Amino acid sequence: MPDTPPARRGPYAKTAERRLEIIRTATAVFASYGYRGGSLRQIAAQLGLPLTTLMHHFPTKSALLEAVLDQEDAADPDAEGRARHDGFMPMVLGIVERNLGRRELVRMFSVVSAEATAPDHEAHEWLLRRYAAVTVDYGRMIAFDQAEGRIRSRRDPVQLAGLVVSAWEGVQIRWLADGTDPVAAMRTLLAALLDPAD
Amino acid sequence: MPDTPPARRGPYAKTAERRLEIIRTATAVFASYGYRGGSLRQIAAQLGLPLTTLMHHFPTKSALLEAVLDQEDAADPDAEGRARHDGFMPMVLGIVERNLGRRELVRMFSVVSAEATAPDHEAHEWLLRRYAAVTVDYGRMIAFDQAEGRIRSRRDPVQLAGLVVSAWEGVQIRWLADGTDPVAAMRTLLAALLDPAD
Repeated sequence: MPDTPPARRGPYAKTAERRLEIIRTATAVFASYGYRGGSLRQIAAQLGLPLTTLMHHFPTKSALLEAVLDQEDAADPDAEGRARHDGFMPMVLGIVERNLGRRELVRMFSVVSAEATAPDHEAHEWLLRRYAAVTVDYGRMIAFDQAEGRIRSRRDPVQLAGLVVSAWEGVQIRWLADGTDPVAAMRTLLAALLDPAD
Repeated sequence: MPDTPPARRGPYAKTAERRLEIIRTATAVFASYGYRGGSLRQIAAQLGLPLTTLMHHFPTKSALLEAVLDQEDAADPDAEGRARHDGFMPMVLGIVERNLGRRELVRMFSVVSAEATAPDHEAHEWLLRRYAAVTVDYGRMIAFDQAEGRIRSRRDPVQLAGLVVSAWEGVQIRWLADGTDPVAAMRTLLAALLDPAD
């Protein structure tokens, strides 16, 4: 019965929708102005909401930042499964390709990450945790592929993981700036670093 | 006669010094807050100068941005000479090493570059020109080393140059964030990409 509203509509669902809407707009504002340059006032204005309504959902700018940064990891819980099944390199290239359709999200991460390199930045701890976690996860996936013979480089897998993550960051910034194909760039970089079997 | 003031002190020298001081402070402010998040007012306050004095030297924020961005290239006119003499890879590693002592300058470039990927950003054209120029210059240096037998990769030199520039950007951000050695990272990346003869 397509006319029946879905059962989950109600005050809670409305709150969830409003939160998502705020997160989406905050992503765009932080992408343009950075976290430090963006303001709750600006985000509320862009949504046509009173500031007090926005602050009912996110009482501080840093609470909103946390929600904005969280959307990424929640979106991809099965990277490791894909890496085991298809290989580390195809898994990474799949994310690079998916990111082609998420330009403002990628820009937000690039801008906030660059800002957050400063030790006194509100997202500095988040950035360090993210680098550490991704490096450990990717290191494990690369070690798996080395054992399987899919990756022939004998370098330390954690070191390789760190280089992949760093190079990727730069490749995405270049893509955002002038459209240089990030899939082709990552394919060449990964092949040079990992020496894949095919 | 060490007590004699240098001949070039005078109103012009004072203006030049004041300009340099403003550029240095603007670099630090843009590194922390981004170009969009930083303001002339903030820069003047940090220098203990009236805003009108700052605006006498730089009438607009974008005039100041231009001066801030220009300081880099002016500082290294002979990269190509060093590349011809020592090789492309040692030349790049030399700059990476020199940048260890210029943390705030590197952070400013990282933050402003990420922001400036947006087509409506005041530094967008600068960023595109910079990528294009560096890629062409590095491509020429790589081609020279390929011809000399110092670089064994037979890939298109301009494509290699683009990958080096992108990977470097990410390596520097990682260094700024958590101190990961950028010289070691770039040495491994360059060796994997270029296949140097030694």
